[in-house]
Amino acid sequence: MTLIEKTEQLKKSSYRLAAAGEDLRNRVLLDTAASLRKNADRIITENKKDLDAAEKADLNQALVKRLAISEPKLEQMALGLESLAALPDPLGRTTLHRELDDGLVLNRRSVPIGLIGVIFESRPDALVQIAGLCVKSGNSVILKGGSEALNSNRILSEIIIEAAEAVSDVFKDTIMLVESREDIGRLLEMDQYIDLMIPRGSNELVRHIMDNTKIPVMGHSDGICHMYVDEAFNLEQSLDLIRDAKCQYPAVCNAIETLLVHEKAADRIVPLLPGKMPEVILLGDEGVRRLIDVESASEEDWDTEYNDYILSVKIIGSLEEAVDFINLHGSHHTDCILTTDDKKADYFMTNVDSSSVMRNCSTRFADGFRYGFGAEVGIATGKIHSRGPVGLEGLTIYKYFLSGDGHTVKPYADGEKEFTHRDL
Amino acid sequence: MTLIEKTEQLKKSSYRLAAAGEDLRNRVLLDTAASLRKNADRIITENKKDLDAAEKADLNQALVKRLAISEPKLEQMALGLESLAALPDPLGRTTLHRELDDGLVLNRRSVPIGLIGVIFESRPDALVQIAGLCVKSGNSVILKGGSEALNSNRILSEIIIEAAEAVSDVFKDTIMLVESREDIGRLLEMDQYIDLMIPRGSNELVRHIMDNTKIPVMGHSDGICHMYVDEAFNLEQSLDLIRDAKCQYPAVCNAIETLLVHEKAADRIVPLLPGKMPEVILLGDEGVRRLIDVESASEEDWDTEYNDYILSVKIIGSLEEAVDFINLHGSHHTDCILTTDDKKADYFMTNVDSSSVMRNCSTRFADGFRYGFGAEVGIATGKIHSRGPVGLEGLTIYKYFLSGDGHTVKPYADGEKEFTHRDL
Repeated sequence: MTLIEKTEQLKKSSYRLAAAGEDLRNRVLLDTAASLRKNADRIITENKKDLDAAEKADLNQALVKRLAISEPKLEQMALGLESLAALPDPLGRTTLHRELDDGLVLNRRSVPIGLIGVIFESRPDALVQIAGLCVKSGNSVILKGGSEALNSNRILSEIIIEAAEAVSDVFKDTIMLVESREDIGRLLEMDQYIDLMIPRGSNELVRHIMDNTKIPVMGHSDGICHMYVDEAFNLEQSLDLIRDAKCQYPAVCNAIETLLVHEKAADRIVPLLPGKMPEVILLGDEGVRRLIDVESASEEDWDTEYNDYILSVKIIGSLEEAVDFINLHGSHHTDCILTTDDKKADYFMTNVDSSSVMRNCSTRFADGFRYGFGAEVGIATGKIHSRGPVGLEGLTIYKYFLSGDGHTVKPYADGEKEFTHRDL
Repeated sequence: MTLIEKTEQLKKSSYRLAAAGEDLRNRVLLDTAASLRKNADRIITENKKDLDAAEKADLNQALVKRLAISEPKLEQMALGLESLAALPDPLGRTTLHRELDDGLVLNRRSVPIGLIGVIFESRPDALVQIAGLCVKSGNSVILKGGSEALNSNRILSEIIIEAAEAVSDVFKDTIMLVESREDIGRLLEMDQYIDLMIPRGSNELVRHIMDNTKIPVMGHSDGICHMYVDEAFNLEQSLDLIRDAKCQYPAVCNAIETLLVHEKAADRIVPLLPGKMPEVILLGDEGVRRLIDVESASEEDWDTEYNDYILSVKIIGSLEEAVDFINLHGSHHTDCILTTDDKKADYFMTNVDSSSVMRNCSTRFADGFRYGFGAEVGIATGKIHSRGPVGLEGLTIYKYFLSGDGHTVKPYADGEKEFTHRDL
């Protein structure tokens, strides 16, 4: 079978999968968890092949570390699937229940999206998490992992597919691993079969996918997050939050790239920044450089995601100016105000157009697990359908169900009958 | 100002508009309704210019009829705006309220999408309805109407903009009418400013827009709707429903194009079809043609939206076959089963992957007004964000609000603290 035939098969199977009960879907998750534990040795042996190849190819150590599957990491994957099974069913939730007229009843219920393509890099545990989210939400899924994790991805997807097909025939042809880089291009052309693409990886990968397909894409390319220090703020707390948001894990999308400081707050906090985070290279505008000895930030810096121990800092004249600056230069991902003033917090959170807006806490909380979604397929900055950390709910859409007893439109169109429109 | 500068201005204004209270937005709707009544003579005079031009250009009568604005039609527009004002606010609805840990609280609330571009044809009352929906949902909007309604659209948009700006400065630069056909191409390139395009018009218009922009498009090109007559059915009721779904208004997307009949039902119902709807040209497969004398349906017919008094009819061997046929040939818009069997209805409604699935009623009910949404911007067949009749709710998206008291991620990442994830 060619890739297009296989993809058509997955699309067809997705219709049946939509009707699979919660029990079946949860059983797949639990059986997969058990099978991961039982096959620990096999998985670690296959993973070792990838690690050896990475060693030979001289991949950088951070990447090799992400690639490695240890016993505890495997146990974490299994626990993740078990906690996913324990979450409430995202399907069949009634979000509207309305009588239109006597005997004519409308329902809107959540249903799966259909066939989802996920393209991710290096971490093989992402495969287990994503496949698990798709099983729980009743979606068929095409998985394309990084070539450096080829053997790991193969064994993991084999184990999931085996567990799923053993539970019920309804899961046949609902999960597929795709291995070659050329297949990405082929998948991007199959808008007749694939309902949604979710790229997880570098900005370049995401932008390439967004620019080369008619399939809707959920995700984000840039993660340019801000903190804004208002004139009324708690000094010690703010310093801790800035440090956490920048340094706790700088390579991720919800770490901050730019710090804005109100001009009336600047001389209290800016001089303490270098001491608070000595490992960070600070870049400043003129106002900042009057207070501390740092390199100058260029215009480009305000639009740059460093993903590194670098932070650009700017003095701002007012809250309104800060909000405008963030809406212009940010990526509508996650932005936070540090203030003790409720009104200013409210203005900031209402007017900043980002998927998560925060007050007096770290931007690093913008995450599906931390929000209590169990896991996430990614963080979306679009506004169509889902934004912010996307968990199970973001993998569903609703469908209208209307039942009548011979109701024709004509008497309503002719004004002989009127709707009751009564919510039930 | 160039179109791109004006569009940038509308995008900027949309951030402020997102904070406009419900009272202000409703007042715009009520003041516009009052102004439509007060300016009835001016509006009808301007509309007359379009009607005269249409007469001269020899436009077809159906089109001229849709173009005309009478006193009763104007009163309907005003009443429509008033009932929109009376609907609950679609903004600020809390859809998640969760404590993540002591003092760290997450909220998810509905907010506007931002700047929406709407391209519609001929009917000037559509302009009032769409602008009204956007005002109520706090979205900025660019309106592009048909050139044959130029003078009507101009006066109507003037009246809305005047009413809005008189209510508050927050509505300045939030509504814009665009007149030239060339501007459509320019708008489609402005994915940095426009969050969503909603085309309402011919299949060709919609497909052109979907194929030529990176902006998300909400709507549908085809409306290929089905009715399926199961083996257990109510004969008289089914004939009435088939007639209503085809003939009540055949030029619209939610009219049926194809009738599927179970082989065990065929000889009871098929022979009665020509008598029940003499104005309809029936096309049949071989099985149908054994029962009645009609032209043969070609393979293409199963994928054709006639928008006319034409209906293709096919005999089907089983419910499963009917569902597969609809998922393959339909446009995921609206499909209906005619049956007295609850289990079969349930199977059909679960397995047909359309935005509205129905039982024993007319597909013509798939409509925002009939569903009780007050009005609709269109019917969407995509699955990302909104599908089916799209009213106010489909013009909003949510935003996460997180408030803490100095909460850093580090202790959670290091395993020193655990989330409570308690829904409030």
